[in-house]
Amino acid sequence: MAKAVFDNLSGKKIANFVVGIEDDLLGKSLDYDENFTIEEEGMSECLFYGLGSDGTVGANENSIKIIGEAKADLSVQAYFSYDSKKSGGFTVSHLRFGKKEIRRPYLINNADFLACHKFSYMEIYDLLAFAKEGSTFLLNSPFNAENVWNEIPVEAQQRIIDKKLKFYVIDAASIARSTGMGTRINTALQAAYFKISGVLPEAEAVKLMKVYVEETYGKRGKEIVERNFNTIDKALDAIEVVNYPSKADGKRHMKPAFATAKDPWIKEILGAVSRQQGNKLKVSQIPNDGSFPTATTQYEKRSVAEQVPVWNPDVCIQCGNCVAVCPHACMRMKNLTEAEIKAAPAGFKTAEIKPKAVEGKKITLAIGAEDCYACGLCFNICPMSKDTSKPVSLSWKQYAGDNDFHEEQVKVWEYFLSLPEVPESELNLGTVKGLAYKRPLFEFSGACGGCGETPYIKMLSQLFGDRMVIANATGCSSIYGGNLPTTPYSQRSDGRGPVWSNSLFEDAAEFALGMRLTSDKLGESAREVAAKAKAEGIAAAIIDKLLANDQADNAAIDAQRKNVDELKAALAKESNPTAKMLLSLADHFVKRSVWAFGGDGWAYDIGFGGLDHVIAGNKNVNLLVMDTEVYSNTGGQMSKATPVGAIAKFAFSGKETSKKDLGAIAMSYGHVYVARVSMGADMRQVIRAFQEAESYNGPSIVIAYSHCIAHGIDMSKGLEQGKAVVSSGIWPIYRYDPRLIAEGKNPFQLDCKDPTTTVEDYMYKEGRFRSLTGAAPERAAALLAVAKAHTERTWKEYKYLAERPF
Amino acid sequence: MAKAVFDNLSGKKIANFVVGIEDDLLGKSLDYDENFTIEEEGMSECLFYGLGSDGTVGANENSIKIIGEAKADLSVQAYFSYDSKKSGGFTVSHLRFGKKEIRRPYLINNADFLACHKFSYMEIYDLLAFAKEGSTFLLNSPFNAENVWNEIPVEAQQRIIDKKLKFYVIDAASIARSTGMGTRINTALQAAYFKISGVLPEAEAVKLMKVYVEETYGKRGKEIVERNFNTIDKALDAIEVVNYPSKADGKRHMKPAFATAKDPWIKEILGAVSRQQGNKLKVSQIPNDGSFPTATTQYEKRSVAEQVPVWNPDVCIQCGNCVAVCPHACMRMKNLTEAEIKAAPAGFKTAEIKPKAVEGKKITLAIGAEDCYACGLCFNICPMSKDTSKPVSLSWKQYAGDNDFHEEQVKVWEYFLSLPEVPESELNLGTVKGLAYKRPLFEFSGACGGCGETPYIKMLSQLFGDRMVIANATGCSSIYGGNLPTTPYSQRSDGRGPVWSNSLFEDAAEFALGMRLTSDKLGESAREVAAKAKAEGIAAAIIDKLLANDQADNAAIDAQRKNVDELKAALAKESNPTAKMLLSLADHFVKRSVWAFGGDGWAYDIGFGGLDHVIAGNKNVNLLVMDTEVYSNTGGQMSKATPVGAIAKFAFSGKETSKKDLGAIAMSYGHVYVARVSMGADMRQVIRAFQEAESYNGPSIVIAYSHCIAHGIDMSKGLEQGKAVVSSGIWPIYRYDPRLIAEGKNPFQLDCKDPTTTVEDYMYKEGRFRSLTGAAPERAAALLAVAKAHTERTWKEYKYLAERPF
Repeated sequence: MAKAVFDNLSGKKIANFVVGIEDDLLGKSLDYDENFTIEEEGMSECLFYGLGSDGTVGANENSIKIIGEAKADLSVQAYFSYDSKKSGGFTVSHLRFGKKEIRRPYLINNADFLACHKFSYMEIYDLLAFAKEGSTFLLNSPFNAENVWNEIPVEAQQRIIDKKLKFYVIDAASIARSTGMGTRINTALQAAYFKISGVLPEAEAVKLMKVYVEETYGKRGKEIVERNFNTIDKALDAIEVVNYPSKADGKRHMKPAFATAKDPWIKEILGAVSRQQGNKLKVSQIPNDGSFPTATTQYEKRSVAEQVPVWNPDVCIQCGNCVAVCPHACMRMKNLTEAEIKAAPAGFKTAEIKPKAVEGKKITLAIGAEDCYACGLCFNICPMSKDTSKPVSLSWKQYAGDNDFHEEQVKVWEYFLSLPEVPESELNLGTVKGLAYKRPLFEFSGACGGCGETPYIKMLSQLFGDRMVIANATGCSSIYGGNLPTTPYSQRSDGRGPVWSNSLFEDAAEFALGMRLTSDKLGESAREVAAKAKAEGIAAAIIDKLLANDQADNAAIDAQRKNVDELKAALAKESNPTAKMLLSLADHFVKRSVWAFGGDGWAYDIGFGGLDHVIAGNKNVNLLVMDTEVYSNTGGQMSKATPVGAIAKFAFSGKETSKKDLGAIAMSYGHVYVARVSMGADMRQVIRAFQEAESYNGPSIVIAYSHCIAHGIDMSKGLEQGKAVVSSGIWPIYRYDPRLIAEGKNPFQLDCKDPTTTVEDYMYKEGRFRSLTGAAPERAAALLAVAKAHTERTWKEYKYLAERPF
Repeated sequence: MAKAVFDNLSGKKIANFVVGIEDDLLGKSLDYDENFTIEEEGMSECLFYGLGSDGTVGANENSIKIIGEAKADLSVQAYFSYDSKKSGGFTVSHLRFGKKEIRRPYLINNADFLACHKFSYMEIYDLLAFAKEGSTFLLNSPFNAENVWNEIPVEAQQRIIDKKLKFYVIDAASIARSTGMGTRINTALQAAYFKISGVLPEAEAVKLMKVYVEETYGKRGKEIVERNFNTIDKALDAIEVVNYPSKADGKRHMKPAFATAKDPWIKEILGAVSRQQGNKLKVSQIPNDGSFPTATTQYEKRSVAEQVPVWNPDVCIQCGNCVAVCPHACMRMKNLTEAEIKAAPAGFKTAEIKPKAVEGKKITLAIGAEDCYACGLCFNICPMSKDTSKPVSLSWKQYAGDNDFHEEQVKVWEYFLSLPEVPESELNLGTVKGLAYKRPLFEFSGACGGCGETPYIKMLSQLFGDRMVIANATGCSSIYGGNLPTTPYSQRSDGRGPVWSNSLFEDAAEFALGMRLTSDKLGESAREVAAKAKAEGIAAAIIDKLLANDQADNAAIDAQRKNVDELKAALAKESNPTAKMLLSLADHFVKRSVWAFGGDGWAYDIGFGGLDHVIAGNKNVNLLVMDTEVYSNTGGQMSKATPVGAIAKFAFSGKETSKKDLGAIAMSYGHVYVARVSMGADMRQVIRAFQEAESYNGPSIVIAYSHCIAHGIDMSKGLEQGKAVVSSGIWPIYRYDPRLIAEGKNPFQLDCKDPTTTVEDYMYKEGRFRSLTGAAPERAAALLAVAKAHTERTWKEYKYLAERPF
């Protein structure tokens, strides 16, 4: 039954502004009026839609301070709502100004001013539903006032006409590029807001904005301040009013959510959540056990990149590096036949296979433009794109706003995905190039553009994704790993793929251990019942095959799956209790690869006690530590992995103690497989470490250097830092394999050479270290000295470990 | 107001059998009738008073099974209540047999049969208060039926006469000795119980006892079974009826509790608790903040030893070893003058000081017989008591029952304590001998006789006890460390001594860190306020002295205390607010030595996350890990410190993985002082490690090998195992001092030589390893091989660490 909500005092009907749960199972939810608003003299409400890390939120925090300080008689309120994507997500800034005290503890749904800072949102979100009649709408658009009308969906046109909006455009991206601000569009858009909202007189607003620029960037040098001033001035001149017709006759339509999904539940329910409509779902539409389907990020097609890489088949040497490092798995390789080439859509590129052409086959490198974040890691790792005086393998092409290009790329990518996979028997998965052909089972995650963690997960998913069971510690990897409504963990064509869960921050290792023990016990039971079944004359030949298969490689594992299918078929006919029992256990004949994933906050700090407990035991649990050297997900607090001299929350004047050596601790056990790796330094070593860790029948830990936005770096250069951390001797990469002890060999193998670059070379490319040199130069120098001494000492230790007689 | 308790159904007044709290503050407690009992046809109630680890509890568990199985028509109930002393404590077994279902969830207070297994209890506890009129009383007594009456206190005589008890004696200790049972008196006393209680016909009881002996000891060989059979038979013949007079005219009296305490609160309140009368105390008598005074075990004078060591001054070389290892701090050394020698009581022995006699002075070695546990560690470590074919320095003398000797020893000990301490300026505290003269501030603890942990604590108390602040993890050390009503942490003559607290099992390191931070902050505040005071012209000269004192040694610390006293005296006259503030902070000018104590369950397992967090930081916290390689306090569960091949709970078939190397983990940080020590191997190295750890201004951890009853060893040989674990290469002792790095020296110093004994030599002297060789010889051999390989490998690593170029 729907119920109205009444005011306790007046008895008048009021709305419930907290968008309620529609409980269609127990019928206990309350009804509410979606359009209810309270009018108030002098109240101004503003909404800003931004892309995470585009600076919208920071600029609005800034604006609210400017306005609050300039107008002492105004009350101000700001609230920021986000999805749970890392940077690159969906942000909404809710700003209110009122002449009376503001008592509105709810979001804005009838705005006087509404800005959309991301043009592609127009075809995804029905933002204008929240604009008040006669209000102002500012759109950041690559199209000018003359052309923009036809580029927005007809649904938006109708809203603008119906609500009689004052419609403005500005091309903030091109202003930011022209003034040297890169992708930071916030300053331009803030200026535009002040100009057209009229909340402050323009001259006063400009003056105050410039004061804030001084305060915020003054320390970082005059040049940066000037750039911002210049941006403000340019922006004020670049705003255009859009004069629009009285009839909506656009050809474009809003994109239906998850259009490519075949499962109607995914399309409707998850699609609604993805369009910020999740609160409107009914209780009966939600999974009753909390399990969500995998392989759903593929339907998001977020198109957040302004520009995307394009491939030059003639220059590319087909090394596979770009495919390996792409954090979002939107660069892929396949070979295809002449017939397939003929059937390809326009824009589909191929090249002769290198180094030796193969008769009747060509190679293609596909780039999923809709899923690309334009992070630039592919450029950074490409050996053929460094020297821009010659033709390069990868180059940027404007994507946002170029609808023809967009549509071409959609078709190219769809065609690419429809092509058959290269058979695994033709691939050497121990090489970067071989792996580049293997379909990733982790794709299009909500991690930051250029994330240093996701390439590791993607690589593991290529190697073992069909049988992985993952316990994920809370942190970035749990956010982008289980980012409702979608998950980047995906499935190969037979539906197999990683199974994933997150329990807590602190217990991922124990959680994985529980998964291992369960799997082992069920496998043991399966073998026991199989022996009994065989003795009873049931399916003896298949059981023999099942028990004989050691599942030593992917082919053997796939063979075992066929054996299981055969067994199930045989057992389906039997009514004997042993046969029924065996049928219920049959899937446990196939081995599972159990992993715990997490960051350094988990592994070095909060979950260390449990991690230690798991490695102290002898169960086959694999641990991947994506070491960003800081609590990245919660905003950059110091962890025990934070290196000496780095600034972090709780270590504002630079961390005093050296980084904890988790690898050394793990190696002290002697029976633990341990590897330290860095994608930027040696990708092949990473692959080898993963393969060894997984094949070792005991606890394994792989500690992976992961660059991060928290380091204060240009993320497109992240892999260079991953290289420099190794070449400076700070992060020697190695593998410690206990199996070698039994062979009388040294279990420790150092995988890098003597340092060739300096410690400061690495450190001072990162804001976390560099900023201390400005704020406290003497302390910075002292901590650098500690870092250098520590590096020298530990390098010696590792060197000895590698060279000692064994 | 006292209130009666009424039966809900009948309305009749009934008693509250749970001995209540007497709440004299809020008056909310209920009154009860102490003597109320419920008579029931066919109900038999038995009480047995024993000394922890004398076998009483085990024998009673056994008896209840025998009776329960033999008499199917009987209901049986057993409950065992203990004090919180480790072995050597006070145990009461409550056994009931009834014809109806037993519904008595409370302790027995009116027994049909009462046995006292420890003769000295007669003068300490009023046990016979709980005997029913006409019931049977069995006393384990070194005196026979003819002599015993005059040896028991007159109060007990009166109870026996008043209650018309049937009184029997047996000398179980001498039977046990004569049949090769050592100190295990349980079998003899169980036989006596069955003979005189009449609960089963004698012949049937004897038969069943022998069946149980077979079941319990059969695996351990025929000889042990025969010994037990022989003990049963001898015991049955040795029981005597005591015919006693009708008038109590004994000369002996029960000992008043805590007779030597001067503080009336300690004497009355803590004394009452020590006599098992704590439940009778009123709420107002209990400390309102939970703090209890230290230095209270000295009043217990438990006299639990059957025999005690006596000193032969002629043979003794005065090395101080016995003083160092005595787990109960009841062996001590002092020098004394001729005048003091003259004033000494009878039995007080002295010798010329060796190696060089000192004019006018002699040495004495005193043995606190009332506090001795007869553990035998002093014999085991004494270089002059090994070859018993020659005169020895220490020999055993019967103590229990020899009242003259007892009284002589009381006087000797009292006189010894009254002698002045040897001035610290005359001692070299870095040597075992020097330290032997230093008064311990940890004494007479409730740890097991021969405990391998307490000598370490005692040694620390000698070195730093005057300024120690201790955070104790839960475990044996928290039980014997804070064993209400007494604590072994004591005070020197000026009242200074360790401050001690226990929080939880898992947080001792963090708890200590909190103490450190608090102390540091208060010290910092004291210095700040002192600077302000000086600027205001207050106590400038004293403040200068205070700030200039670096407190580098004990003398400087004592000088600082005098400075503080001077400051306080000066400030007491001032009314200025700065002076008042400084007065409140004055004590914080004296440095504190902060320690976390605990066992391996804490350090390797449950508290490891926190311990790691503390050592990862750079605060001056000292951690002592008393490593018994098993959860000792909770009954022997496997920890990560348990070595490969050892049997423990959760590792019944021998632990499969090697011991975790906590020292290596700590050393991996580089800035942590780390030492591994073993009292049995090198006492001087232990002292050095403690001194270095304490003086290092950063985190320090000392990992101390601690033999334990859980190892299945003859505890008197514990130190031999502490030696063998080092000489076999299993437990290399070392010190890692980060200060040496700054000097360009190798921070790692190995303090032992190449192995001279074998791994199995060490292992198979301990039941935890040996028993597997019987139960599963092949597995035992395999695990031994792992242990040997592990020892060889880790020895090499340590050897390298010591010898590497630095």
